[in-house]
Amino acid sequence: MGVHQYFKSLSDLEKLVRCPGKFKYHEHNVASHSFKVTKIAQYLGTVEEYHGNTIDWKKLYEKALNHDYPEIFTGDIKTPVKYASKELKQLFNEVEEQMIHKFIVTEFPPEYQDIYHSRLQEGKDDTLEGQILSVADKIDLLYESFGEIQKRNPEPLFFEIYEKSLKTIIQFDHLVSVQDFLDNIVPEMLEEKFIPRSELREITHAILDKEDS
Amino acid sequence: MGVHQYFKSLSDLEKLVRCPGKFKYHEHNVASHSFKVTKIAQYLGTVEEYHGNTIDWKKLYEKALNHDYPEIFTGDIKTPVKYASKELKQLFNEVEEQMIHKFIVTEFPPEYQDIYHSRLQEGKDDTLEGQILSVADKIDLLYESFGEIQKRNPEPLFFEIYEKSLKTIIQFDHLVSVQDFLDNIVPEMLEEKFIPRSELREITHAILDKEDS
Amino acid sequence: MGVHQYFKSLSDLEKLVRCPGKFKYHEHNVASHSFKVTKIAQYLGTVEEYHGNTIDWKKLYEKALNHDYPEIFTGDIKTPVKYASKELKQLFNEVEEQMIHKFIVTEFPPEYQDIYHSRLQEGKDDTLEGQILSVADKIDLLYESFGEIQKRNPEPLFFEIYEKSLKTIIQFDHLVSVQDFLDNIVPEMLEEKFIPRSELREITHAILDKEDS
Amino acid sequence: MGVHQYFKSLSDLEKLVRCPGKFKYHEHNVASHSFKVTKIAQYLGTVEEYHGNTIDWKKLYEKALNHDYPEIFTGDIKTPVKYASKELKQLFNEVEEQMIHKFIVTEFPPEYQDIYHSRLQEGKDDTLEGQILSVADKIDLLYESFGEIQKRNPEPLFFEIYEKSLKTIIQFDHLVSVQDFLDNIVPEMLEEKFIPRSELREITHAILDKEDS
Amino acid sequence: MGVHQYFKSLSDLEKLVRCPGKFKYHEHNVASHSFKVTKIAQYLGTVEEYHGNTIDWKKLYEKALNHDYPEIFTGDIKTPVKYASKELKQLFNEVEEQMIHKFIVTEFPPEYQDIYHSRLQEGKDDTLEGQILSVADKIDLLYESFGEIQKRNPEPLFFEIYEKSLKTIIQFDHLVSVQDFLDNIVPEMLEEKFIPRSELREITHAILDKEDS
Amino acid sequence: MGVHQYFKSLSDLEKLVRCPGKFKYHEHNVASHSFKVTKIAQYLGTVEEYHGNTIDWKKLYEKALNHDYPEIFTGDIKTPVKYASKELKQLFNEVEEQMIHKFIVTEFPPEYQDIYHSRLQEGKDDTLEGQILSVADKIDLLYESFGEIQKRNPEPLFFEIYEKSLKTIIQFDHLVSVQDFLDNIVPEMLEEKFIPRSELREITHAILDKEDS
Repeated sequence: MGVHQYFKSLSDLEKLVRCPGKFKYHEHNVASHSFKVTKIAQYLGTVEEYHGNTIDWKKLYEKALNHDYPEIFTGDIKTPVKYASKELKQLFNEVEEQMIHKFIVTEFPPEYQDIYHSRLQEGKDDTLEGQILSVADKIDLLYESFGEIQKRNPEPLFFEIYEKSLKTIIQFDHLVSVQDFLDNIVPEMLEEKFIPRSELREITHAILDKEDS
Repeated sequence: MGVHQYFKSLSDLEKLVRCPGKFKYHEHNVASHSFKVTKIAQYLGTVEEYHGNTIDWKKLYEKALNHDYPEIFTGDIKTPVKYASKELKQLFNEVEEQMIHKFIVTEFPPEYQDIYHSRLQEGKDDTLEGQILSVADKIDLLYESFGEIQKRNPEPLFFEIYEKSLKTIIQFDHLVSVQDFLDNIVPEMLEEKFIPRSELREITHAILDKEDS
Repeated sequence: MGVHQYFKSLSDLEKLVRCPGKFKYHEHNVASHSFKVTKIAQYLGTVEEYHGNTIDWKKLYEKALNHDYPEIFTGDIKTPVKYASKELKQLFNEVEEQMIHKFIVTEFPPEYQDIYHSRLQEGKDDTLEGQILSVADKIDLLYESFGEIQKRNPEPLFFEIYEKSLKTIIQFDHLVSVQDFLDNIVPEMLEEKFIPRSELREITHAILDKEDS
Repeated sequence: MGVHQYFKSLSDLEKLVRCPGKFKYHEHNVASHSFKVTKIAQYLGTVEEYHGNTIDWKKLYEKALNHDYPEIFTGDIKTPVKYASKELKQLFNEVEEQMIHKFIVTEFPPEYQDIYHSRLQEGKDDTLEGQILSVADKIDLLYESFGEIQKRNPEPLFFEIYEKSLKTIIQFDHLVSVQDFLDNIVPEMLEEKFIPRSELREITHAILDKEDS
Repeated sequence: MGVHQYFKSLSDLEKLVRCPGKFKYHEHNVASHSFKVTKIAQYLGTVEEYHGNTIDWKKLYEKALNHDYPEIFTGDIKTPVKYASKELKQLFNEVEEQMIHKFIVTEFPPEYQDIYHSRLQEGKDDTLEGQILSVADKIDLLYESFGEIQKRNPEPLFFEIYEKSLKTIIQFDHLVSVQDFLDNIVPEMLEEKFIPRSELREITHAILDKEDS
Repeated sequence: MGVHQYFKSLSDLEKLVRCPGKFKYHEHNVASHSFKVTKIAQYLGTVEEYHGNTIDWKKLYEKALNHDYPEIFTGDIKTPVKYASKELKQLFNEVEEQMIHKFIVTEFPPEYQDIYHSRLQEGKDDTLEGQILSVADKIDLLYESFGEIQKRNPEPLFFEIYEKSLKTIIQFDHLVSVQDFLDNIVPEMLEEKFIPRSELREITHAILDKEDS
């Protein structure tokens, strides 16, 4: 019992597969996802700061790193269940909070419990940092679903996730970093090649012909 | 839309990993688990019938085959969350039922909807078949956790699961099939070898020595 | 030695990969396959019963659940080998039967040995239940190969399997449940999104048309 | 070309397996490792701050998040090669720096290039944040090797890694957070159970006996 | 059609898992196995040559490289089936030969067909090279089963495989290379560590204590 | 210490993934790759011999089998790093040679050390056998990248690898076996079936446009 349990639990996040129950070409886990969300949030924060907005970096990093940690206690509850009713959502939140509370009180030294209570709170609030987290979380989800679509996963779910993620990101388009993402990064993403066979044949013949001549 | 969606969903059960978020040597999925539970229930029913009890086989098989199908809609919600409060459990059950209802109404031809409503109901009731399902489900869980313990998974969770499963099985020891399981099968299970290195060395030398003489 | 060995062997079926020796996007194991075949047989039986035919449900479920269990003893022998000659096929069958016999006599209590002998017999006989098993087995194989084709597996083998499975299913089109499958479920399957695979559709229709004429 | 390439590269880190070329029970990737190192650094920083030392949190998080990103360019070069000679190490560092430079200049908008140059620099310097990174990196490596040893990986390499990591951590024992780790967390780690079979047998009999009496 | 099919088939050997239907910590495929058998045969041949025996290296390498290639046609048939009766074994061999014949005639240019017919013949004959192949094949099997036992795979099968492999190897102890294997390599193998927890605790305390003093 | 370490190290080659850090549909390991290169070299040598050139088969097989063994010591260093400068390349080579030397001297009996020194030398020299190795190594790489392109891996890297491999092979087109490969095998490879697509871009723009208006 103690911080060792907390350190050890980080490996459990590596065993929580994202979007379970669906065939995926490239599986992601919650630990990797958290890393990518934090790196994306870092970029978005950089853009905001460059355009004159103040970023509380400590807060932003804490929000991004910890945003999915509570899944250790609850497992991966499918979104339609979670949001089926306000009542259910609230009850789930209460249970989640109690579990986090119990974990912190059991495993952390008293002097750090307040800090971890605040770190493991819901991070997606209305602050600039909370909004950046919301966007970064959806950008990684967009990339995850884009990756499946690009690899031609026939499951329509990934198309829906792609669509919903993009729509959520757009809801934050009052942020300069979201404008930057939509104006500069999405177009690059759509430039990605889907290598057709004809091209393979052409390049092969081009290479072979050059040698012949 | 239609029965094709139902047939296709069976493959999704192959992608739902049992006990997510924990390192396991041997991963199991919900489709395989359902198969094993049905085969175990078949054996338990056979024992009951041999001892003069009447088994409604159609009902037993339907219960066993379908008992985890609703996880397709809800995902794998960790037990402590699910049972955190009576209220939450009830709300969750309602949501699950609505989702099953919606799925059946959307995908199945009207003439078979009633049949599937009854098939996808909670199967663990007080009938003999319902009790056998409860036991078979826990026997497979016992085997899953035994397999990890035997392979020396250091995670205490599997020990807890082993203990709880066994305790639940014992609650049904008024069933002759449970008596049979406890009297005949558990002892065999505990006889399983944990091959020690010393034995390897001995057998190697025994083989080598026999040749030398 | 005993029923524990039988219960434990169910996990071995999870480690028998279907169609070994070929790259697959989505791997399936024999335990999951058996589950899906049983669920498909359940649907087909439901259709038959609705149209006035009598189903011996106990028999149907036993056939479906156990139809690939003997692969535990024999491994996965490639079809062309198995059917290379009548003589070889018959010798293989004899060996398989001896192995099943020995397993039952060694592991099962005497009072249940007859029951398991009958359960582990070849299930694909001429009864309605035997025919449903033949169809359900091929429907799952059709879905497995369809899944690979839809994910664009370039290996022609999956196309051949798709074709052969469909042809076998059609041989049972005197069954009302097979008519239902061909009329209602196959068209839904071909409606699946993200496949401009005209070829798949064409060959399917070509096969269907040939049978109609 | 652009930030999209940078975002996409984060997924490549998920495909870089740690400690390649050795059998491992639990494989880790560089993305997950980076997440865990950052979370561990967060805890260590918290301890330092509590004891009156000033932490530049922005700097600490940047160092931890990015410390292995350059492996995208260089691959996983085995430590003995990297450190075979001063000359080789230096030449290697120069190549790494050139690759990072080229990547930043090619993919990032000019206004953020300086920021990313500083972020992707070697982070393990003599500052308190640099030292915390060095320790956090080794603590995760200690946990990785401990996990293998606890699962009884017979490969002596993991024992060596455990030993070397611990020795490196101890070199930083002038840090109060390292003292905390050695005094409080390591002892908890060593309390971890290695479940022996005898215990399984005892608990089973204890449960069964309780029921009998 | 052509040699391309032959080159492509080499990748199918990577998808043929050795010893299917059993839980294994470390899975091996037929391509990797063939590589290892060839490398082991190379060592054994080296020992024979050093002791004055003549090795036809071309023949030895051909035998070792190709010894399991026919599994592409037949799949992995469990040994007890294959050897159930002389009749079955012979019929099976005939089918295998026909399949190899058909493959060579279909895919290879006429000028190389005789060479490949001889290369894909059964290699385990009474020549020195044939005997070395028999031994090398069993040494790799011994290592595969040793690896599982050392990782504490509780499945008794691996113990049986270990035993049988060693016994087969000993049948060739008239070979100087087998004597070398038994006298020098097996003892080293048995020296392999099974790291116990007590040792971990000791070394940790030893490291910590050294620092304290 | 001894040849056992060498035999055991062959399994480590099974855990060295080719082209790490990139998503691949079909992962290959260094042991399997070495097997395939040796089999391809065998075919190329057969073609050369048929056309009157003399092949030193022992030398050819030794070169092919061992060409990637040193990766056990160095790990997988990305090509751009390895070839960044002549100096770095040379230093890497020196370190590699020292490691091989140390391994041979430590693990092999003195009487075989010279033989293994010569076997583990760089094999791609100007001899016919060295040239065949260079070609066979690239043909397997061509097949690996072709497999990914055919499965529609969107990563442009595999296209580049395909191109570079083909160009390297063509540099050896003075060999009759390379002429045979280019004239007969590449055309068969390009006959392999493929499939096309373009819908994601549209829906993305549709969403973006809807939001803009």
